[in-house]
Amino acid sequence: MNEIARKIMDKLAGIADSAFVTSSSGRIYIFSNSPSEGFVLLTKSEAYVLTDSRYFEEASSLIKDVNVLCFTNLKETIKSLIKKHKLKKIALEKKHVTVQNFYSFRESFRSLGTSVICSSRLDRIISDLRVIKSEKEIKKIKEAQRLAEFAFEKVLTEIRSGVTEREIALKIEFLMRKNGASGIAFDFIIVSGERTSLPHGKCSDKKLKNGDLLIIDIGAVLDGYHSDMTRTLCVKSASEREKNIYDVVLKAQLAGIDAVKHGVLAGDVDKVVRNVIKNYGYDKNFIHNTGHGVGLEIHEAPQISVNCDTMLEAGMVITIEPGIYLPKKFGIRIEDMLLVTKDGCKNFTTIPKETLISC
Amino acid sequence: MNEIARKIMDKLAGIADSAFVTSSSGRIYIFSNSPSEGFVLLTKSEAYVLTDSRYFEEASSLIKDVNVLCFTNLKETIKSLIKKHKLKKIALEKKHVTVQNFYSFRESFRSLGTSVICSSRLDRIISDLRVIKSEKEIKKIKEAQRLAEFAFEKVLTEIRSGVTEREIALKIEFLMRKNGASGIAFDFIIVSGERTSLPHGKCSDKKLKNGDLLIIDIGAVLDGYHSDMTRTLCVKSASEREKNIYDVVLKAQLAGIDAVKHGVLAGDVDKVVRNVIKNYGYDKNFIHNTGHGVGLEIHEAPQISVNCDTMLEAGMVITIEPGIYLPKKFGIRIEDMLLVTKDGCKNFTTIPKETLISC
Repeated sequence: MNEIARKIMDKLAGIADSAFVTSSSGRIYIFSNSPSEGFVLLTKSEAYVLTDSRYFEEASSLIKDVNVLCFTNLKETIKSLIKKHKLKKIALEKKHVTVQNFYSFRESFRSLGTSVICSSRLDRIISDLRVIKSEKEIKKIKEAQRLAEFAFEKVLTEIRSGVTEREIALKIEFLMRKNGASGIAFDFIIVSGERTSLPHGKCSDKKLKNGDLLIIDIGAVLDGYHSDMTRTLCVKSASEREKNIYDVVLKAQLAGIDAVKHGVLAGDVDKVVRNVIKNYGYDKNFIHNTGHGVGLEIHEAPQISVNCDTMLEAGMVITIEPGIYLPKKFGIRIEDMLLVTKDGCKNFTTIPKETLISC
Repeated sequence: MNEIARKIMDKLAGIADSAFVTSSSGRIYIFSNSPSEGFVLLTKSEAYVLTDSRYFEEASSLIKDVNVLCFTNLKETIKSLIKKHKLKKIALEKKHVTVQNFYSFRESFRSLGTSVICSSRLDRIISDLRVIKSEKEIKKIKEAQRLAEFAFEKVLTEIRSGVTEREIALKIEFLMRKNGASGIAFDFIIVSGERTSLPHGKCSDKKLKNGDLLIIDIGAVLDGYHSDMTRTLCVKSASEREKNIYDVVLKAQLAGIDAVKHGVLAGDVDKVVRNVIKNYGYDKNFIHNTGHGVGLEIHEAPQISVNCDTMLEAGMVITIEPGIYLPKKFGIRIEDMLLVTKDGCKNFTTIPKETLISC
């Protein structure tokens, strides 16, 4: 039983005598060498990783500090652990368990006198622990960001009129993964021209042309940990209006980064960013949150959004990513990923943003 | 309201007067041009796609035959539709909805006198419809398979001692996507040497060496539709034992394909395959199902597994993929994807398998 498992069970005391973790982020958080599919069962004294025969050989060779069990029938394996540890109350993650699985577990274990609870308590315990990153986790997130930046810089030299959004996305992904990323953090948002006004547009076969704006929103995954960054570029040249709005977004983003510090409310950081944009009359065109936590999920706690009363704490990793979107015209977004520190923050994003990068 | 939406609501008659579809496969099945995130609400007379501001502009330009609504607060938007259509009972998908969302919807709509039900009925209605593929769907699955085969054949010429599993995986993926695949159907299983005994091993940085077996299990996604195939190859040469076991797996696979036909039970196809392997004494080493349905999910109904009493029907797309795994030694799997027809099946996989391909 490792330290994280121990902490979860300590916080669960009085609520349940065991936890059955079904989310992959929870599983990897507790046991970083988890197999790609499986479950974690924690009791007061023991931790188990349950996986089926497809993953068992690999899991048992990778995970050394915990019991790895191979199941053919998941519920029967849990039942045997219920009996072994005399479990009376198993907690599930409310945000992750489907209604089907919850009902089915509840039904199956009733005959053993074991109840299954699905309050949000277990979710919160894991989420609260995950929100503050360990040194080891920070290293992985930084490394994921480094992989993204390496790919971004390499591809920059190849961006020109005639290249398609999809081609850029593929090249970036290929470079990330060739260099060790286990995957991409999300479907890249690489949109150009009018399409930059879609904050979450899909990459298309549209060819870049001179005068287009280009948004590149990318991230890599390393050992389950994500990175996230956005830059807005222009192909050859930009209009005065585009440059002016870029400056507004940049000003808002810098003000946001400046506001980040241990002890500040997430909602107050959002307000700082939103106010800059409002002062220029574009508040109606900033149609999403200011940022979000990043870790084992691309979007996780804390949210940096209107009125959010979460206090930022040293060790959180968050994005600051304001954008202004003019439908059918263009959009601009700038996003950095940073570590909250006692006195401010440490920016993990090193790609320049002072002016619209021209390529 | 399109034909699929109409069929779902017809089958739901007497159970609920509306359906709220939260699964992405369900959403894409009903409206093939769905945005990457969103929900579908069906009433008796109208269909709605609900998406947030990030996807709204794109969604409303892509989807023409249905109302696209932009929500800032999902529950408020649903409430307004409840009022508009006087909805009394909303069905959710039990397999997809989390306990958290179910409870939260139930609580929110209670004050309007609307109940939320989460039986498996809606899941089954959609799954039953999805299991028989339309001409349009079959075309997409075939095209996805064509993309996978094109990449496989291209990469075959580059496989030799010294190349890593990960490099092969990346090249295949790159080729698929360069040619139009929207993604990969699953994390490719490309394992070599001893690692072939892991039915679902992750690609590693292990370099191929002469005498290694190599399993390549890949699939592409096109417009949400998946493909799936596996070939076992050898680098330069294979031992007599490997060749013999290859022949057993091949015999089992061919017998399975031969057994596939409209009207046959899935469990009987599994039995045919398993019996061949059993006759050679390797039944303990065939540690997974014989196959599965393929479509908007990589694993969907029907399962081709022990005692499964699902009747195969013309229009189903399934895999037949027996394997023999000798822990710490090697494994062999051969997988084709086929369309069940009235008289037998149509094999979508055209890559040769008669003998261990040597490269």
